[in-house]
Amino acid sequence: MKIAVFPGDGIGPEVIAETVRVLEAMRLPGLVLLGGDVGAIAYQRHGHPLPPETLTTAREADAILFGAVGDPSCDGLERHLRPEQAVLGLRAELGLFANLRPATTFEGMEDASALRPEIARAIDLLIVRELNGDVYFGDKGQRTTEDGRREGWDMMSYAEDEVRRIARIGFEAARGRNKRLTSVDKANVLETSQLWRDVVTEVAGEYPDVTLDHLYVDNAAMQLVRAPGQFDTIVTGNLFGDILSDQASMCVGSIGLLPSASLGERKTAGGTFGLYEPIHGSAPDIAGQGKANPLAAILSAAMMLRHSFGAEDPAQKIEAAVARALADGIRGADLGGTASTAEISDAVIARL
Amino acid sequence: MKIAVFPGDGIGPEVIAETVRVLEAMRLPGLVLLGGDVGAIAYQRHGHPLPPETLTTAREADAILFGAVGDPSCDGLERHLRPEQAVLGLRAELGLFANLRPATTFEGMEDASALRPEIARAIDLLIVRELNGDVYFGDKGQRTTEDGRREGWDMMSYAEDEVRRIARIGFEAARGRNKRLTSVDKANVLETSQLWRDVVTEVAGEYPDVTLDHLYVDNAAMQLVRAPGQFDTIVTGNLFGDILSDQASMCVGSIGLLPSASLGERKTAGGTFGLYEPIHGSAPDIAGQGKANPLAAILSAAMMLRHSFGAEDPAQKIEAAVARALADGIRGADLGGTASTAEISDAVIARL
Ligand SMILES: CC(C)[C@H](C(=O)O)[C@@H](O)C(=O)O
Ligand SMILES: CC(C)[C@H](C(=O)O)[C@@H](O)C(=O)O
Repeated sequence: MKIAVFPGDGIGPEVIAETVRVLEAMRLPGLVLLGGDVGAIAYQRHGHPLPPETLTTAREADAILFGAVGDPSCDGLERHLRPEQAVLGLRAELGLFANLRPATTFEGMEDASALRPEIARAIDLLIVRELNGDVYFGDKGQRTTEDGRREGWDMMSYAEDEVRRIARIGFEAARGRNKRLTSVDKANVLETSQLWRDVVTEVAGEYPDVTLDHLYVDNAAMQLVRAPGQFDTIVTGNLFGDILSDQASMCVGSIGLLPSASLGERKTAGGTFGLYEPIHGSAPDIAGQGKANPLAAILSAAMMLRHSFGAEDPAQKIEAAVARALADGIRGADLGGTASTAEISDAVIARL
Repeated sequence: MKIAVFPGDGIGPEVIAETVRVLEAMRLPGLVLLGGDVGAIAYQRHGHPLPPETLTTAREADAILFGAVGDPSCDGLERHLRPEQAVLGLRAELGLFANLRPATTFEGMEDASALRPEIARAIDLLIVRELNGDVYFGDKGQRTTEDGRREGWDMMSYAEDEVRRIARIGFEAARGRNKRLTSVDKANVLETSQLWRDVVTEVAGEYPDVTLDHLYVDNAAMQLVRAPGQFDTIVTGNLFGDILSDQASMCVGSIGLLPSASLGERKTAGGTFGLYEPIHGSAPDIAGQGKANPLAAILSAAMMLRHSFGAEDPAQKIEAAVARALADGIRGADLGGTASTAEISDAVIARL
């Protein structure tokens, strides 16, 4: 089990340190941890948010455990030197095209949501977001038009093979859940979306046991507020996935509990190469104070064991320990409690 | 006061008929109403969702009162014949570039929202959405790549003058409200957004009394769930505005109460040429049953009096009558009540 550990900035190092403690407490055979710098700290040390040595380490590993990147000190930097370029760079360089973001309300956590408790309680969905294409990675630039006006432009596009492979991930995921897949696009306006819709509909033929429906992105944003419990699995493009997955996370309320996986095509001994990270950010305002909630990072490690190492039992063991710690009332500052970062992971380790 | 009245499909004709009754009850001097077909009904009668005669009528008027378009019978049609093309066509042909969508929780309506009542109650925001540019109106198409794969593509872009004029609308609107403007973009990924952010920042110099901040669209989608009460005025591009304005409407809950205005550059005797419509759709499932709530359409007419005719007093008179009717417990089926479409507008007329 070769894991590249990239803690990054802000609270990243704290939550990743606790996650490593949990992994070590599991006494998994053959665990090898490789270190690397990403984000603002990498820029400070190596002059680039994603230095070549980090990329080499990533390529040697079977999985990446990622903290968070971002620091206000970098706000003035040119775009290609900003911390978030580490995220975009890893996705592109390593072909991490499938972002899995479960949003589930943990028992007893519905009070953390801005939604009514009965609506929040019903949330149990998975967003599958395409991560290598769309307007994120198309040609882009600024130019001056013939009549002297500045113009910014970005090309949005998807090719059928890009849509097909992420659609399959969506259908497979839905098959392992409640067998309902909602594809989100804007096919009434965008040709990219029309192709998306056509290809997803074609792929549906391979999955007769999964029910597929299509939703426009504006309607999806409404339904995620009105009745998020109606969704099982959602598959969508990079841009719409960025917006909807953050919206869905916030519906759950306890954003400090939500993990994510970004999977590539490369197979490992036990599964698929992937990057695993909490969905919360680097939260520089509370960094270094022992206030961060490590549970999202710990749950990301569980996803890693499942998807990259085929270690379903250890994954479930971690998830059960986290659920028990929460049920026992362990709460960090983000959930109105007083438990420190280390106390939270101690509680998880004690319940493994 | 020359008003083009385009009822459209589904519940459009019902809510517009009641709105016209309210306008007539106001005995406004010189009211002239011109009719026209849009949407599915226009396709059935004239073979096109936006027939040339409708466009001519629109150009003769000072304002358009619009119902809703959309009908399942059109699902199989080619894109350019579908009802929503009437909406996009009117926006493009008439240069309606500024979409104003207020989202306010009416007193006593917080129970209609999926958000907790104390969070819903605090919502009082205005979304200013650009409506003539962005990936909506750029070049687009499908092609087959050299290696034989289908690809869909859409060009996203904004030029500085397009951003500047919508930014000014945003700043002016904020000035008339609580003097806080939030500009939403995705400048960490998109060049279109970087230009957007730069130009909005430049325009801020003309409005020293308004506080400006910038938010990434994914963060905005989160904040609109977590604490929508924090927003005063939001300005954003066409695509992000489509998503966020629908999300914000649903946060308010009572979507049957929300009006909208789409303004152009042409000046009228009393203000600006514009199109006014309820934000709810054509709701074909309840059409013709007297169940539709006409209040969003009636409030759209109030916006029309204000923005296109400079008739602030009559506008406020309508808004006050609607508020009193709601305070008196008049509720349509959409808000759990039993009042019919006509009963609701009767209640408004009685309170004018
Ligand atoms: C940091 C940013 C480029 C990134 C994205 O937009 O994908 C982030 O918002 C995310 O969702 O991981
Ligand atoms: C019908 C559709 C083209 C339209 C849009 O996307 O602008 C609608 O969603 C809206 O917001 O008015």
